[in-house]
Amino acid sequence: MKILVTGFDPFSTDKINPAFETVKRLPDSIADATILKLEIPTAFKRCGEVVHQEIVSAHPDYVLNVGQAGGRFGITPERIAINLDDGRIADNDNYRPINQPIEADGATAYFTQLPVNAMTRAIRKEGLPSSISLSAGTYVCNHIMYEVQYRRATEFPELKAGFMHIPFLPTQVVNRPNMPSQSLDDDICGVVEAIKTMVEMDGRSDVDSIE
Amino acid sequence: MKILVTGFDPFSTDKINPAFETVKRLPDSIADATILKLEIPTAFKRCGEVVHQEIVSAHPDYVLNVGQAGGRFGITPERIAINLDDGRIADNDNYRPINQPIEADGATAYFTQLPVNAMTRAIRKEGLPSSISLSAGTYVCNHIMYEVQYRRATEFPELKAGFMHIPFLPTQVVNRPNMPSQSLDDDICGVVEAIKTMVEMDGRSDVDSIE
Amino acid sequence: MKILVTGFDPFSTDKINPAFETVKRLPDSIADATILKLEIPTAFKRCGEVVHQEIVSAHPDYVLNVGQAGGRFGITPERIAINLDDGRIADNDNYRPINQPIEADGATAYFTQLPVNAMTRAIRKEGLPSSISLSAGTYVCNHIMYEVQYRRATEFPELKAGFMHIPFLPTQVVNRPNMPSQSLDDDICGVVEAIKTMVEMDGRSDVDSIE
Amino acid sequence: MKILVTGFDPFSTDKINPAFETVKRLPDSIADATILKLEIPTAFKRCGEVVHQEIVSAHPDYVLNVGQAGGRFGITPERIAINLDDGRIADNDNYRPINQPIEADGATAYFTQLPVNAMTRAIRKEGLPSSISLSAGTYVCNHIMYEVQYRRATEFPELKAGFMHIPFLPTQVVNRPNMPSQSLDDDICGVVEAIKTMVEMDGRSDVDSIE
Repeated sequence: MKILVTGFDPFSTDKINPAFETVKRLPDSIADATILKLEIPTAFKRCGEVVHQEIVSAHPDYVLNVGQAGGRFGITPERIAINLDDGRIADNDNYRPINQPIEADGATAYFTQLPVNAMTRAIRKEGLPSSISLSAGTYVCNHIMYEVQYRRATEFPELKAGFMHIPFLPTQVVNRPNMPSQSLDDDICGVVEAIKTMVEMDGRSDVDSIE
Repeated sequence: MKILVTGFDPFSTDKINPAFETVKRLPDSIADATILKLEIPTAFKRCGEVVHQEIVSAHPDYVLNVGQAGGRFGITPERIAINLDDGRIADNDNYRPINQPIEADGATAYFTQLPVNAMTRAIRKEGLPSSISLSAGTYVCNHIMYEVQYRRATEFPELKAGFMHIPFLPTQVVNRPNMPSQSLDDDICGVVEAIKTMVEMDGRSDVDSIE
Repeated sequence: MKILVTGFDPFSTDKINPAFETVKRLPDSIADATILKLEIPTAFKRCGEVVHQEIVSAHPDYVLNVGQAGGRFGITPERIAINLDDGRIADNDNYRPINQPIEADGATAYFTQLPVNAMTRAIRKEGLPSSISLSAGTYVCNHIMYEVQYRRATEFPELKAGFMHIPFLPTQVVNRPNMPSQSLDDDICGVVEAIKTMVEMDGRSDVDSIE
Repeated sequence: MKILVTGFDPFSTDKINPAFETVKRLPDSIADATILKLEIPTAFKRCGEVVHQEIVSAHPDYVLNVGQAGGRFGITPERIAINLDDGRIADNDNYRPINQPIEADGATAYFTQLPVNAMTRAIRKEGLPSSISLSAGTYVCNHIMYEVQYRRATEFPELKAGFMHIPFLPTQVVNRPNMPSQSLDDDICGVVEAIKTMVEMDGRSDVDSIE
């Protein structure tokens, strides 16, 4: 099994992004699955094509996109991507879409194929906070999650894909009072557990809720 | 123009629900539109039919469902409803769905037809905090928003519909430390402004983002 | 009985301060006590003398200073004032003390003489969130609370005095995401209840804790 | 130089306390100072005497008490201890004082002798969030901080002492939604930096504020 794991590069005022910091430190193999790691640009118009090309050339079974969600208290697998770009700030190409659909002929939304309930439970079992998120926002994180789902719907029907948000790193909150953070070691631990669960649950359903 | 505004009844440990408390105090007419007010049950299996019957009998041009979102800091119009029931707690019929689709043949999600950007801006102009929400959750609030959209898609193509969450009332947070609240007067003021905006924007597009 | 109630004027980027907005709207008499209302400057070096002169000329039995605490979720009577000025920002005279004692020969701290447990309970009984605070900070609020206590210790042994913090007004949080607020009506209601309780408890002890 | 560092044992529903978990993992020597480590009971009536005996027998130059502050976002050195026991919950001896002075003949409050500004700055320099706290509460944490200061004032005039609060561990917030946490490695790193700073600043003043 091959799993493509992507992480965004730094954006806005931050010089570091926990997403690719975590992704680049993942082992090359988790639960017998090969892990392909890719840094992708925080850019609405470019990130989709970068991932698309990697899917075309590497034929992964799964795509897991990882992004930063400043303000969240734990790792949050996303359940759904919506057909909307609406940037509160400009991206790394200085592009800021306002209330734009991502794909004119795309669905309003796509659910992930990842076992988010089981993933969340597995991360908690490691002693780390985690919960399912119902919104990946309307910035580049939702954009890439949506784009991969759209390509799945139109091009790669066998692909399974999804997105996970991770909190700020401690160093990012030194000058942001009362902002939660999580250490890089715990980010890595949580993402590894989530991937293990994806592999173990492959072909099985994920029906139980988590509180 | 006729606008049906609904509010849920109290649920869980709360003896009061700011939603219907607000709705029942709305004026009978706002910006020349007639306001129809309806209390609906916090019950997955019943709330949809109650609203459906009212749409059939009263022929409203708009449906605005209002619900409580404990923990939010202001009024939050919802942008999208998703095809998922997943209750953290049981409803007033003691029913707790786990990871169930709402309608087997429904879309994954529906966007609201309400001008949520303009509504949010109007509430802020009154000096009240407001922002667009990207998730109505997976409890009864999302359920009714989804159900009305599903009926719109299948039965009432002219209908415009949406959902607004309002915070706890102050009395509800007396024993909930560090929980935000909003006074009933401010709830009413905010919902009236939102409805005024719906009427004024009728037939116009709502393209600008709000921060 | 005479009660002097003060409220600070606006400071920093805010054009309004809920403290004097509330104080100036108090009735002139509460539970048979005469209410003297005074706006005081948000200025370390001037506020103490303004209050001192009013005590000298009006001979109040109680002094209640009211100030804004942005970020708090309810009305918070303060238990203690400490001998420290340490401004995160400059005051309205553009003065910013760093780690300075307020009075070289003052005590490290003074407890309030107000019945803060009973006051908190009374505010809650009105359906408003309230809790005792253990720190008035090191800005002008703590400064005036300390100054009045210092004058009490050295000049007015019969005086009873204390401080209450109140949250932002809703209008102040429109552009401050995820900040709690409280309406002006609820501020007034809460301060009136607290003063009623001060009058009723006069001469009695205030021993019970509140949770 | 000898530094006594104490950490509380677990209390209430928690099976672990980050305080002694951190303290017991400190190196035996930091910046040439000898580190003495002591677990102390979360018990109002016993913790003071346990520390007192250790001061008498080991003659430390500094005492640093460490405790858990659930809900805080980083390491917070405390500036002041107040003469008040007021437990929201019972301690490990099932004792719950309500509004009691700690020492009938003690001062209302004592400032710490530790260089809290410099300590906070040093922790931040390591990439960890930290700020000075103005209240150690009225539970066992404030109690031990006050007790050591009281003994200093009456018995050990050369002693320098203070208190640091550290956040929940990640494992403690798995079932506490939206609660901040900090990893044990980061707790240890932060406490080591703080102690280094205490040693380096020994005999120097600590005048600068920190924001």
